[in-house]
Amino acid sequence: MLALTILGNNSAIPAFGRNPTAQILQTLDESYLIDCGEGTQLQMSKYKIKRSKISHIFISHLHGDHYFGLIGLLNSMSLLSRTQDLHIYAPALLEEIIRIQLQAAQTTLSFNLYFHPLHQEGIIADTKKITITAFRVKHRIECWGFLFREKKKPRSINPDKVKSYEIPAAFYEQLQRGEDYITKKGTIIPNNEVTLAAPKPKSYAYCADTIYDESLVDIVKSVDLLYHETTYLKEYHERAADRYHCTTVQAADIALKAEVKKLIIGHFSSKYETLELFLEEAKTVFDNTELALEGACYKI
Amino acid sequence: MLALTILGNNSAIPAFGRNPTAQILQTLDESYLIDCGEGTQLQMSKYKIKRSKISHIFISHLHGDHYFGLIGLLNSMSLLSRTQDLHIYAPALLEEIIRIQLQAAQTTLSFNLYFHPLHQEGIIADTKKITITAFRVKHRIECWGFLFREKKKPRSINPDKVKSYEIPAAFYEQLQRGEDYITKKGTIIPNNEVTLAAPKPKSYAYCADTIYDESLVDIVKSVDLLYHETTYLKEYHERAADRYHCTTVQAADIALKAEVKKLIIGHFSSKYETLELFLEEAKTVFDNTELALEGACYKI
Repeated sequence: MLALTILGNNSAIPAFGRNPTAQILQTLDESYLIDCGEGTQLQMSKYKIKRSKISHIFISHLHGDHYFGLIGLLNSMSLLSRTQDLHIYAPALLEEIIRIQLQAAQTTLSFNLYFHPLHQEGIIADTKKITITAFRVKHRIECWGFLFREKKKPRSINPDKVKSYEIPAAFYEQLQRGEDYITKKGTIIPNNEVTLAAPKPKSYAYCADTIYDESLVDIVKSVDLLYHETTYLKEYHERAADRYHCTTVQAADIALKAEVKKLIIGHFSSKYETLELFLEEAKTVFDNTELALEGACYKI
Repeated sequence: MLALTILGNNSAIPAFGRNPTAQILQTLDESYLIDCGEGTQLQMSKYKIKRSKISHIFISHLHGDHYFGLIGLLNSMSLLSRTQDLHIYAPALLEEIIRIQLQAAQTTLSFNLYFHPLHQEGIIADTKKITITAFRVKHRIECWGFLFREKKKPRSINPDKVKSYEIPAAFYEQLQRGEDYITKKGTIIPNNEVTLAAPKPKSYAYCADTIYDESLVDIVKSVDLLYHETTYLKEYHERAADRYHCTTVQAADIALKAEVKKLIIGHFSSKYETLELFLEEAKTVFDNTELALEGACYKI
């Protein structure tokens, strides 16, 4: 199971109590932080997200509303004497931005920080349970989206059945991989007679800041949850294009064409005090849409 | 008149709803921002401080809890199309930290940013109403305190009196400077007969992060308001010294020796959930002490 918690859903300037972009994707063991706008560590305290569980951080691009909170988070982790490794995936220049600020404070981090500059599309991280792929999105500056896919889990063994067929424990691993069992007498015991299929691996795609771009459709095809930015309502489609952003109906259009299960929308412009129209407009195109609300947790 | 608003009163890690250091000193025309921890722009929204009135920013040192909110504030000012000049006074390396982050976002600020690296003690800024002096304080890294002094204002003329003595308007400026008037017949009209003294110029001293240091006494002598850090309660005086910080009674001792009118204390360690003991301990040495509480405004 994956669970996504929204820590910030606003664009450039914090407004109407909304914070800049940050999200936490959690598995049972680990947390992945996706973007880290100013105040993210305060939002984490508010929503009881444990800093210590974060193993990987993914930064889509170097506009401030997506990373100005990172240095404060790293600093706090170090002050709290973190020892676990931390991996950051981001545009290359961020490494120097972190370095110079640590240097200015004469700070040596208490943990190993592994910085992985993003250079090409493809798999960038492969953890115990998740494979993470980076893909380019079209924004004013270098910008990346991230696709998180759970790995295929083994089938689970039905203990009563394996006992009744007298299948030796040594063969269990093969059963979990889906193989049939052949008894000494040559009888075939079909795999699905003694095992249960694992839950289908789940997937989450984060499209960061992007202009309307149909080439995303294939990349996020059929994911369980798609986050797509909707900086503007549909009437502002020209401004959206000028600024390499999207409108509600454009985001919903990508969701529809990609046949995703569910869409969440966010990165709302600071010009909007309320968000009802965002949801209303997106739903006219793709019904299973929700607003990315701060503090909300989307089970995937 | 000066008014000081506290935007953040905590040390290193945000804790118990307390934010890292930031203060706003306001005159009728302008605001001066003193330090700018992460989330300062959000605190400014919360406490109705206008970003646009800030003309000068003073950063004491490059530990993150004193400046990580600066780049976000600058970015927002630019996104809001600020045109007024902005002056920043800070340790030299901050200029590069700002530059590289603007470069990463391909941002050109909408206003002129004048960066004034701090190199030596003395007057660093002289605005219409205030003279600002920088002084070194002893901390783990290069660190500066700031002294804000209102300029002497002209005496105000008593309109009835100048009329009754038939003093020509051309002489008013001299009266305001304190000169006596001599009539054509040679009679001396004493200045205080026709003018009123201006209110005494006020002063505020910000001692930033510092170890206990008696050399501060002469620098902040007799100021109307002294801010002195009290990271720890008195029982932690050894830890305070190790980390170049102060305790409650040490801060109060500086206030007492400097004969200041009032002391406010802040930069509380994240280990303390409540602050009552800070006030209690400081008051045993210097009675006119208050806690630097977020959102509180101290009229000077």
